[in-house]
Amino acid sequence: MKIHQRNLPRVVIIGGGFGGLEAAKALGKVDVRVTLLDRNNHHLFQPLLYQVATAALSPADIAEPLRHILRKQENAEVILGEAERIDVHRKKVVLTDGELDYDFLIVAAGARHSYFGHEEWEKFAPGLKSLDDALEIRRRMLLAFEIAERTEDDEERRAAMTFVVVGAGPTGVEMAGAIAEIARVTLVKDFRHIDPAQARVVLLDFAPRVLQMLDPELSESARRQLFDIGVEVRPLTLVEKVCAEGVQIKGGEKIAARTIVWAAGNAASPLGESLGVPLDKQGRVIVREDLSIPGHREVFVIGDQAHFAPGGGTPLPGLSPVAMQQGRHAARNIRALLAGGWSDKFEYFDKGTMATIGRNRAVADAGFMRFSGLLAWLAWLFVHIIFLVGFRNKLLVLINWTIAYVTYGRGARLITGRQWGTKGGES
Amino acid sequence: MKIHQRNLPRVVIIGGGFGGLEAAKALGKVDVRVTLLDRNNHHLFQPLLYQVATAALSPADIAEPLRHILRKQENAEVILGEAERIDVHRKKVVLTDGELDYDFLIVAAGARHSYFGHEEWEKFAPGLKSLDDALEIRRRMLLAFEIAERTEDDEERRAAMTFVVVGAGPTGVEMAGAIAEIARVTLVKDFRHIDPAQARVVLLDFAPRVLQMLDPELSESARRQLFDIGVEVRPLTLVEKVCAEGVQIKGGEKIAARTIVWAAGNAASPLGESLGVPLDKQGRVIVREDLSIPGHREVFVIGDQAHFAPGGGTPLPGLSPVAMQQGRHAARNIRALLAGGWSDKFEYFDKGTMATIGRNRAVADAGFMRFSGLLAWLAWLFVHIIFLVGFRNKLLVLINWTIAYVTYGRGARLITGRQWGTKGGES
Repeated sequence: MKIHQRNLPRVVIIGGGFGGLEAAKALGKVDVRVTLLDRNNHHLFQPLLYQVATAALSPADIAEPLRHILRKQENAEVILGEAERIDVHRKKVVLTDGELDYDFLIVAAGARHSYFGHEEWEKFAPGLKSLDDALEIRRRMLLAFEIAERTEDDEERRAAMTFVVVGAGPTGVEMAGAIAEIARVTLVKDFRHIDPAQARVVLLDFAPRVLQMLDPELSESARRQLFDIGVEVRPLTLVEKVCAEGVQIKGGEKIAARTIVWAAGNAASPLGESLGVPLDKQGRVIVREDLSIPGHREVFVIGDQAHFAPGGGTPLPGLSPVAMQQGRHAARNIRALLAGGWSDKFEYFDKGTMATIGRNRAVADAGFMRFSGLLAWLAWLFVHIIFLVGFRNKLLVLINWTIAYVTYGRGARLITGRQWGTKGGES
Repeated sequence: MKIHQRNLPRVVIIGGGFGGLEAAKALGKVDVRVTLLDRNNHHLFQPLLYQVATAALSPADIAEPLRHILRKQENAEVILGEAERIDVHRKKVVLTDGELDYDFLIVAAGARHSYFGHEEWEKFAPGLKSLDDALEIRRRMLLAFEIAERTEDDEERRAAMTFVVVGAGPTGVEMAGAIAEIARVTLVKDFRHIDPAQARVVLLDFAPRVLQMLDPELSESARRQLFDIGVEVRPLTLVEKVCAEGVQIKGGEKIAARTIVWAAGNAASPLGESLGVPLDKQGRVIVREDLSIPGHREVFVIGDQAHFAPGGGTPLPGLSPVAMQQGRHAARNIRALLAGGWSDKFEYFDKGTMATIGRNRAVADAGFMRFSGLLAWLAWLFVHIIFLVGFRNKLLVLINWTIAYVTYGRGARLITGRQWGTKGGES
């Protein structure tokens, strides 16, 4: 256990997402002790989280225990715990139950969804960041069809069969597409009193078009593909209120809906506040060119929690390639500082963006070329399988997808977590 | 939708376990309307539930939505709901939110674990009947190792690394064997401060031997195989108290343990009480020879909820083959009654019993011959794959098992359901 035997400089990494994990790995051959802290025991492959929420994959298919990923890296340890604040003066991370000293710190604690000051909306419209979020959305979506099947009230049935997705970024588009597909294809024979294909799926956004970060041409293609599978896309639409009965549109009607998914807005982890440096409006830490924070060249902030604006322009988006490149870069800078050198400035290499809409449907922007439809969908499948962690996960996801493609089915349609009633014992 | 078009006799089945589902299928070609009621949306392959609890399989691998299983059976509908009581005089099943009329009723609501009057032990020692139970046990087991890794208190570490399984029937034996294997094989490289192989796994039972329903020779073989993988088997041991700190043995020491699994004792669903007929000590309905209840030849009770003692001897055990055969038999009797005939008495065809202990280790009693070790283990694998519902599930379980066998790993080592701390945002 190398980690105990030598008195090496200690690097603490907060967060085992794409950025933090990549940083830990990049420090594998460096003479430091690496401590990776996370409040979950697993790394989550977030780009496929919507597939758990829509019953296509199981949680274990897209998650891998952090300590298992790093089991062969002798200079690394993994701690399950929660950071409460960072004390940059005493060089300590204060946990809910202890403290960690550091010589170098990489903060990669990510973001949660933001309700723009209306946190009370969360219980009616959960967001999608963790496995527990995904299972809750899956539960609500499947339960809605069960309620529609059982009720004799027309209004209740209509609300149960209406699904509203707020936010038309990649997650919102993928969720809306997947729900439409479930209703129109997967469930079509399962019910006796309703026709699931009558389900209404509404995708709202304040922006003038879906997937706004993409080229307008691709946005338009995505909108058309969403229309083809029956998603009602409503751009330039502002949500005024969310409640148990549905969504109130500003200056418009009220959409009665039992299931609402929140895919709009991000707020960085509140951990950044304790660093005592400027934050942007989303709570992201405004980092210097080398990803460190003002006054502390031993503290780096990366990924969704960092505001890094190349050339003073728009900040880099919260995407896994950004976080991974920043993780490797922070590790490289720590190595340089340890060798008595200087840290280097970060440069992002943009490999493109993509989003999937449904069976054979997607859009992709690879920088040098844009494409949509089947080709984009195949590219999406390929990229996501390649980057998924672990041989077992790749194989299981590939098999699940193959079976789903051939059978038009979804294998994980379980309602768990809460019982239907409250009494124990029966059925 | 045939179910609506004709005014056929209505058969209500309470519970979509092995018995209820088999009864529903057996009524597929009969001119009746079948309503299958369950408070979960899925059929659960309970013999493999311990593999979900021990992180080898995902919930979706061993569960299938009931309405999906019955989607092609036009005379059947599935209702998600909870039965509160049965009114045999008005021929109604009263739900928490409604009522169902029946002409024939099959009660197959199963059993929960029983704490012999000490229901307050449940929160310290959860049992294993549902997917939620299995995920809770998985969470506790994995969290125990995390706590052992982090604590600096020797006593706390020892308690965290002690696992007590109460009850040495098939479920208890399988749980104890699987926990020992995880500690000694799967986790061996994952930790830096503890050696998981030092974990202590204790299997307690009041009975004089493990797997008491099997031949003494097989019991002895199972005990030896458990010993080989490091399980401490303690027969003739009575639990006096269970609390957060551990288990107090009657007339013996206190075992400090953080993780306790309850695999002793069953209590039938309380739904049986509302039938107004005699029950046995476990709350099972004492059924007549044709599986109906006294005074109501249109009401059948089957599976774990029924007390059926052939020739006045010991009642049949709570095993899936018993439930399935009874389900088919109840369906056959309904058909006979509808045809103006008489219902027939039930006869159980015993195909044998088996239990697995770990990698290459098991015991099996096929009636005409008994075997243990590798051969029994292969038989166990084969039988469980064959009987698992659905092509997709079979394939995924087979692949999970193959990967686990080759890599000595367990793929679903996720701690979900509750966060480590209480605050939102970080990592």
